[in-house]
Amino acid sequence: MYIENVKKEMNLPEKVRIFDTTLRDGEQTPGVAITPDEKIRIAKRLDRLGVDVMEVGFPAASQGERKAAREIKSLGLNAQVCGLARVLQEDLDAALDSDVDYIHTFVGTSPLHREYKLHMSQEEILSKSVEAVEYIKDHGLIAEFSAEDATRTEFEFLKNVYSAVEDAGADIINVPDTVGVMVPTSMQRLIKNLKEVVKIPISVHCHDDFGLAVANSLVAVEAGAEQVHATINGLGERAGNASLEEVVMALVTSYGVKTNIKTEMLVGTSELVSRITGVKMPPNKAIVGENAFAHEAGIHVHGVLEKAETYEPLKPEMVGHTRRIVMGKHTGARAIRSKLDDYDIEMDEDQFCSLYDQVKKLGDKGKMVTDADLQALAETVLGRPKEEKVKLEGFTVMTGDNVLPTATVKLNIDGRIKTTAKTGVGPVDAAINAIQSLVRETADIELKEYNIEAITGGTNALAEVFVIMADKEGNSATGRSTVEDVVMASVEAVLDAINKILIGR
Amino acid sequence: MYIENVKKEMNLPEKVRIFDTTLRDGEQTPGVAITPDEKIRIAKRLDRLGVDVMEVGFPAASQGERKAAREIKSLGLNAQVCGLARVLQEDLDAALDSDVDYIHTFVGTSPLHREYKLHMSQEEILSKSVEAVEYIKDHGLIAEFSAEDATRTEFEFLKNVYSAVEDAGADIINVPDTVGVMVPTSMQRLIKNLKEVVKIPISVHCHDDFGLAVANSLVAVEAGAEQVHATINGLGERAGNASLEEVVMALVTSYGVKTNIKTEMLVGTSELVSRITGVKMPPNKAIVGENAFAHEAGIHVHGVLEKAETYEPLKPEMVGHTRRIVMGKHTGARAIRSKLDDYDIEMDEDQFCSLYDQVKKLGDKGKMVTDADLQALAETVLGRPKEEKVKLEGFTVMTGDNVLPTATVKLNIDGRIKTTAKTGVGPVDAAINAIQSLVRETADIELKEYNIEAITGGTNALAEVFVIMADKEGNSATGRSTVEDVVMASVEAVLDAINKILIGR
Repeated sequence: MYIENVKKEMNLPEKVRIFDTTLRDGEQTPGVAITPDEKIRIAKRLDRLGVDVMEVGFPAASQGERKAAREIKSLGLNAQVCGLARVLQEDLDAALDSDVDYIHTFVGTSPLHREYKLHMSQEEILSKSVEAVEYIKDHGLIAEFSAEDATRTEFEFLKNVYSAVEDAGADIINVPDTVGVMVPTSMQRLIKNLKEVVKIPISVHCHDDFGLAVANSLVAVEAGAEQVHATINGLGERAGNASLEEVVMALVTSYGVKTNIKTEMLVGTSELVSRITGVKMPPNKAIVGENAFAHEAGIHVHGVLEKAETYEPLKPEMVGHTRRIVMGKHTGARAIRSKLDDYDIEMDEDQFCSLYDQVKKLGDKGKMVTDADLQALAETVLGRPKEEKVKLEGFTVMTGDNVLPTATVKLNIDGRIKTTAKTGVGPVDAAINAIQSLVRETADIELKEYNIEAITGGTNALAEVFVIMADKEGNSATGRSTVEDVVMASVEAVLDAINKILIGR
Repeated sequence: MYIENVKKEMNLPEKVRIFDTTLRDGEQTPGVAITPDEKIRIAKRLDRLGVDVMEVGFPAASQGERKAAREIKSLGLNAQVCGLARVLQEDLDAALDSDVDYIHTFVGTSPLHREYKLHMSQEEILSKSVEAVEYIKDHGLIAEFSAEDATRTEFEFLKNVYSAVEDAGADIINVPDTVGVMVPTSMQRLIKNLKEVVKIPISVHCHDDFGLAVANSLVAVEAGAEQVHATINGLGERAGNASLEEVVMALVTSYGVKTNIKTEMLVGTSELVSRITGVKMPPNKAIVGENAFAHEAGIHVHGVLEKAETYEPLKPEMVGHTRRIVMGKHTGARAIRSKLDDYDIEMDEDQFCSLYDQVKKLGDKGKMVTDADLQALAETVLGRPKEEKVKLEGFTVMTGDNVLPTATVKLNIDGRIKTTAKTGVGPVDAAINAIQSLVRETADIELKEYNIEAITGGTNALAEVFVIMADKEGNSATGRSTVEDVVMASVEAVLDAINKILIGR
């Protein structure tokens, strides 16, 4: 409600264009490299998501970059396809050579960049900038011009450069906060001042070194910027760029400004980019994090169960997310009751108190209680202890440098003893192959995900194995085990998941 | 530089108090539970870091919470120790019972909270708030009062509540943006308006649902707020709270406002909290992320090598971080030359081109090239293939449910063949024990760190093992291997590290 008081003082555009740079600045994330095929997968997804422009690379960097750009262009996407180029002939030619619609050309304008990186005078920078924009326009492409490190450039010079490229025919100017030094108030003022200088649209490109990239992008829009550069998951150089999902949701929800983004695809897009780049988002990432709509504390869960808006700023479905009630030491009785209702588990007051007590104790030990854990605990409280359809009766595995990893497994499946031996690429693989081949006669259960982590430092540390398995009918279950032997932990986790699926059928 | 133009319009305090709530709101992160011992470890660290107040829990929640609070209080820390309490007698008594200096009491004031959670009228909320503050002051403690969901509360009512608790003796009022709905401009205005209502200091507590918690905290300070609630790594409900490290560094660096935080301890504190809570920060996390001061792209590395400030907003040492130059597909020749210089490796132009080409190819395949990889590649290019003092000649390991994990190892150490068999808690432990016992005759090399990760989804995925080993003289080396067999990967990684140490001696 407080935003209404300040909105009338803003110069908000009706709609903001989203310039996605996941495939360029995002790919420059140290340690991240995306193959051309992966670029194409992400590009298709970004197009479905609805970005207006996608910057697909820096064509001058390599033959691979040019090839990927050409292939993306050939897909016939709705989004404009953009390539990055310095204000240098060779860079511009490389971009032209990659068939893009749109060239984003840049040159450093701050004293630091002029003196230490470019060794160029203001006059040289100005004339190179104008030439670059003219060259792009002569070839009939869209020209976006960035004064790199704009936010550490003298305003007089910045004004001159932007005015000159506007006169040269640039379609849009971009204001990069290259090292993320702006605070919202100064960014708002700078854009306001630049609005008085140029008539063409203004774009911003903010870095997150102080965690302010999203805020700086939003206040730029308040001051009249019509385009924002952003990346999925806020990837990019150092601390990254403004996160597309956060910028878009704040624009839509808080400001009522439109974008072309299909917000319900945000979580799925974030997950795709995370898988391909290997950069995992933390649970407390805004909008797309695992916890963005998760609640654990008693007071919060109580509120959310009464009315979700008490502790949620937007509906999870709006971004393709789901609400989760997590149990642990802060969980209140009401949350557990609600979970039991979900699973149609009825119990009397005594049984409930015993269950509640067990959940709290697990929580105090620092354990998270999943829904499956709660069901298992509830079954035990109700005197229906966990039935194991598949029991391990015997297991041996061998591996070595000249040994084909081989596992021998003896299982009791529904009272019948079965044994087999199987090989694999390693001892864990061999063991799981053997178990699956025996269980397959009862049910075809596949391993969907396998995660392993050593909990503490040494080779005698606890290995935590977490698996997800599923049968052909789509029933899936998680399995987990934590013992010192990584092979045994894997076997136990797999059997845990298999039993959950078989009992659920 | 642009901040100077707007700073004179701000109502900046000289110094801001940091109210840390890692141990309360941070611990409410769904899925996170910290044991009392771990709370104490974090509390000691926060005190050394220099937080002014630490909120250590919600005493009414459990006996464990009260015990932890009492123990932290008994440490005699410099920071004030605070407990959270609703405006209810039982909560306040629980807080008093836990010996804290300071009580943070709260009640929901927004229409949503009044109607759906509390079922209380404005008058009831007002009188309960006043009673709570009076009760705290009657017991001689510091009283901080929060109007929960303040940012969705009618301003008239909010004003009345804050004025009433000020009159009742509250020491400070806190303005929580409970579901993170504020944007910087509206937050700044709200705090400005509240400054005209109360004389006591104002604190803010911002949530990060739209990625704006840090920005909203900073603009509140611009408007005169004297205290900020923050958590290490931005932990907390849903998307979390304002990240302490980001708020502090922006205050100090951008605004020139002081805090009592020893900034050079930020990275270490973030790592400790990450280890204890299990919530890992992504590489692109501002200030403390692995990439916060890492550079890969050619243009950026070139700039940073000339002068770090071109692409870094602050010095990494200032926050206890280090600069990293990462090699990959974007790496320029200059970065590789600089690395070779660091290691005193000389090569001619042909050799350099061959090396450069190999690095680029690894990068195109999506591989990161570490410093050790570069050295190994360079040695190969120079025709000095890696010498191995210890070679694996034979290896077998066995484990199972009734088998004591046993490994047999045959090594060639400096031309002499040695064999042994050892047991361990698992096959990896047995294998490493056997290798170490054979190598010990030559050098006493210990395993310092062991990390394992499955690279892709299944049990036939590549297992990446990374070890750090060291001898008694303090020579240490890393070893790494990526093969499908987790046991073999461990053996190879350990031998890799051992060879590096032996060759370096």
